[in-house]
Amino acid sequence: MATPQKMENPNMTKALSDTILSKYINNLASEIKTAITKVKQINPEIEVMGIGIGAPNGNYYSGTIEYPPNLPFVGVVNFTSLIEKKFPEFKHIKLTNDANAAALGEMIYGGGKGMKNFAMMTLGTGLGSGLIVNGDLVYGADGFAGECGHTTVVPDGRVCGCGGLGHLEAYCSATGIKRTVYELLAKYNDSKSPLANIPYNEMTSKIVFDAAEKGDPIAKEVFQITGELLGRSLADTVHYLSPEAIFLFGGAAAAGDYIFKPAKASMERHLLPVFRNKVKILPSKLKESTAAIVGSSALIWKELEKN
Amino acid sequence: MATPQKMENPNMTKALSDTILSKYINNLASEIKTAITKVKQINPEIEVMGIGIGAPNGNYYSGTIEYPPNLPFVGVVNFTSLIEKKFPEFKHIKLTNDANAAALGEMIYGGGKGMKNFAMMTLGTGLGSGLIVNGDLVYGADGFAGECGHTTVVPDGRVCGCGGLGHLEAYCSATGIKRTVYELLAKYNDSKSPLANIPYNEMTSKIVFDAAEKGDPIAKEVFQITGELLGRSLADTVHYLSPEAIFLFGGAAAAGDYIFKPAKASMERHLLPVFRNKVKILPSKLKESTAAIVGSSALIWKELEKN
Repeated sequence: MATPQKMENPNMTKALSDTILSKYINNLASEIKTAITKVKQINPEIEVMGIGIGAPNGNYYSGTIEYPPNLPFVGVVNFTSLIEKKFPEFKHIKLTNDANAAALGEMIYGGGKGMKNFAMMTLGTGLGSGLIVNGDLVYGADGFAGECGHTTVVPDGRVCGCGGLGHLEAYCSATGIKRTVYELLAKYNDSKSPLANIPYNEMTSKIVFDAAEKGDPIAKEVFQITGELLGRSLADTVHYLSPEAIFLFGGAAAAGDYIFKPAKASMERHLLPVFRNKVKILPSKLKESTAAIVGSSALIWKELEKN
Repeated sequence: MATPQKMENPNMTKALSDTILSKYINNLASEIKTAITKVKQINPEIEVMGIGIGAPNGNYYSGTIEYPPNLPFVGVVNFTSLIEKKFPEFKHIKLTNDANAAALGEMIYGGGKGMKNFAMMTLGTGLGSGLIVNGDLVYGADGFAGECGHTTVVPDGRVCGCGGLGHLEAYCSATGIKRTVYELLAKYNDSKSPLANIPYNEMTSKIVFDAAEKGDPIAKEVFQITGELLGRSLADTVHYLSPEAIFLFGGAAAAGDYIFKPAKASMERHLLPVFRNKVKILPSKLKESTAAIVGSSALIWKELEKN
């Protein structure tokens, strides 16, 4: 799950938030109705069983979106109950965080098929995670479990987006990769690296990947460092949960061997002997463009399994 | 669960191990039979439903004890099948690690009654843990999950008993507390501390506790540092699993407020806002002297629940 921070927009009042929310729900309901109609036109036999929602700071238990950092809503929004009012015909309207939804997607449609225990790490702007234990998503006591991005990997290290220090997300997300680029440029004062010609605000994981492909030592070291830290953190994941596999998803994971190789080597080095050579680090089989959709849909499949 | 290391006695041959094991199983079976007879004498209506075993490096799935560091057995021992041969009348003969058994004991007989999500940390010579998610113990893909003692809290820090660096166990177990005492004595060159008169091999958590009670600044700082590191690590536990509570068990936890207060403060400081003031750190309600027994018994209650 990605960061459930209480970092809402300070310029947003409750009244304005309610107005925006009301319009948003109306538009969303209209879009959903259109989508259902289209699906039925393609094949009238398709039965729509429910509505699955993947949302930042989404709480599965309560159906609420709580203090979302990047949405124009204030406080705790009872999101599923608003959707339920628009679609009283559906028994299953469920919401969870985007990374949790992605983990369910991986389990039902992706590389996690048949696995009862695995972890999903989404390496995007932030670092989200979804944990599957005994075939179920871990929601924890309050519905917000699976925040591996905010575990500490470098005590008193970089400032994380959440305000904490040294979190995994501050090092091993796409943003973390960018930060490491400039740390290394500063360290080596390397003017020959192609990365030295790009402004901070324009740097992407893709640019670093391309530079690594051309042999740039800075770019290669960036991935090496990122993989090292990620691998140590994944060893912690294994010590907690002993998963069958850990899936990496998202832009930063697209760097392939540049990140998978050092991550695997570092994870193995940091594992207790009993866990070594057991746990796979795999690229997600979900497509970047459709993961959110299949993940939300998987949320409803999971409900149908329970009933 | 406590360390499943492949660190068996190098002087132990397979043949010698088999001989010792065979004798051990015979003696154990005889003791169990005596115990059952005694229980029946006390109350003939008591029905013995199974045999629960808590053992270091015990694997719930396979019933094996694997490479136990402190037992005179070599390799992988099919422990439950040996006991099954002695007690064919019992349907439920189950084995797990001692810390996992303690977590089940906490759930069925202790402070975890009615909780679906909690963590148990046993702070003894080592640091074991048992994790309860959705009302079940987390065994993971291989039966060895719950090794929080071997997550990294100080990168490249102290050498852990397992050979790894900077593990939680190397700082927040009774042994970790002892190590911190001498690190601080060395740091401050403090000859006035009563702890400075005690040889390394004789130092215990109890001695440090007594010194703290008498106002010794070194002893107080030892607990402060231990609690700080433990709290940061428990924040990681919360970010993974969002438990309702975390129970601390064992000698080091007996220091009470000296360890609970800094641990709680540090955990809260390292948590995402959404998790703050939600998760309790509680002393275990199991007695040190009987925890292993009630834990193993809880393992069988849990089996009966499933059937």
